[in-house]
Amino acid sequence: MLTKNNTKFIKSLQLKKFRQKEGLFLVEGAKNTLELIHSSYKIKNLLVTDSFLSQNQNVINSNNIEVEILKEKELSSISTFKSNADALAVVYEKTPPTYNAAGFDLVLDDIRDPGNLGTIIRLADWYGIKNIICSSTTAEFYNPKVISASMGSIFRVNLYRENLSEFLKKQKDREIYGALLKGENVHKTDFKQNGLLIIGNESRGINPELIPMISNHITIPRIGEAESLNAAMATAIICDNVFRNQ
Amino acid sequence: MLTKNNTKFIKSLQLKKFRQKEGLFLVEGAKNTLELIHSSYKIKNLLVTDSFLSQNQNVINSNNIEVEILKEKELSSISTFKSNADALAVVYEKTPPTYNAAGFDLVLDDIRDPGNLGTIIRLADWYGIKNIICSSTTAEFYNPKVISASMGSIFRVNLYRENLSEFLKKQKDREIYGALLKGENVHKTDFKQNGLLIIGNESRGINPELIPMISNHITIPRIGEAESLNAAMATAIICDNVFRNQ
Repeated sequence: MLTKNNTKFIKSLQLKKFRQKEGLFLVEGAKNTLELIHSSYKIKNLLVTDSFLSQNQNVINSNNIEVEILKEKELSSISTFKSNADALAVVYEKTPPTYNAAGFDLVLDDIRDPGNLGTIIRLADWYGIKNIICSSTTAEFYNPKVISASMGSIFRVNLYRENLSEFLKKQKDREIYGALLKGENVHKTDFKQNGLLIIGNESRGINPELIPMISNHITIPRIGEAESLNAAMATAIICDNVFRNQ
Repeated sequence: MLTKNNTKFIKSLQLKKFRQKEGLFLVEGAKNTLELIHSSYKIKNLLVTDSFLSQNQNVINSNNIEVEILKEKELSSISTFKSNADALAVVYEKTPPTYNAAGFDLVLDDIRDPGNLGTIIRLADWYGIKNIICSSTTAEFYNPKVISASMGSIFRVNLYRENLSEFLKKQKDREIYGALLKGENVHKTDFKQNGLLIIGNESRGINPELIPMISNHITIPRIGEAESLNAAMATAIICDNVFRNQ
């Protein structure tokens, strides 16, 4: 059983303010918790239901993790999910390794929606993209919705928060692709393997300050009438074009 | 000013039960409301702020729409958005035209997340896809999150709710593509112009009952480690491959 203090502490981590103060965040649900256990992130507490424990006894034992068993109702009461029949972990934040410009990376300029950020992290992991560089205004990495939408990929992709203008200035000899409404057809673009792709804000697109730093304006050809695509979907389509010939 | 009864009635339409009983739904925000005004959907009530009205006086006048002016605070109080500084409309549901198999269509099998359904509708509109056929278990079309994520595209794409097994049996002489984890590389697939693409549930994929009806199992090549892609993102990548050579 959870003590009143523990309950209060875990629930406080649903808020950014307390996550940042404590350097801790929450991981919820079966898939994300299993991916966490297999990662190098350090777990502070792991709270599980009996059924999750019995299904995953081996992996929990072999990773030498102490668990606390809760009823589904108790677990749900401290979770951001409507119901949580599996697991919740309190996890230490981690600083990514020093940035290494070895492959094709994503640059997110002011992606505000945590669901978009989370699915973009999952997408990056699908295409083997190692690094995502985010503006200060992009959603917080440890927001529970980001963690949940990343489906465990957050434990494999390096996330950096940078002043994008300063960061881009330092990227000598790299092509900087920007997703814009008027540019070269992505189907015809010869993407360079160590390039960077900038994705802009959901409503306003890429910050005008960054536009002059883009070496290649690129566009997804439109056939129908929608004015634009969702930012995460546009990222997906462009990444598929980047990696289809590599 | 809104009467107490009107407030209650509009707020009731945030719930599926009352939307279905009344045959009405809500459209919120500037972009969606403007797309609504330009569509053939019939508006029952249009509630706007002074600032939205002054910015869009011409389009409102030329479409001969009566408006009621509310303060931002009042409008927000009846909106599903945290704040709504623009507009909210109460709109009559519409039955789509009889299904006409003229082009490439999407089939959504048990897409539960309203955000996914909404962005898929927006995507369909981007690629000029006219019809989306949904299983009975796919999210409700008029859920405010679907409307919002579709960014106005819901007014241009025909949405059908069908027993998918029955529907697919009737699709003679059409290729039926299914997005699966093991299949032909989408980069190498020669998509037929009047084909159908089935996208399965976010966790469980395509219903096993429908698998024998798929003529082409297709897959997005993976380079990294994520187990799967978000369903809406997978749809985006496949659609880009369908339409890149058409």
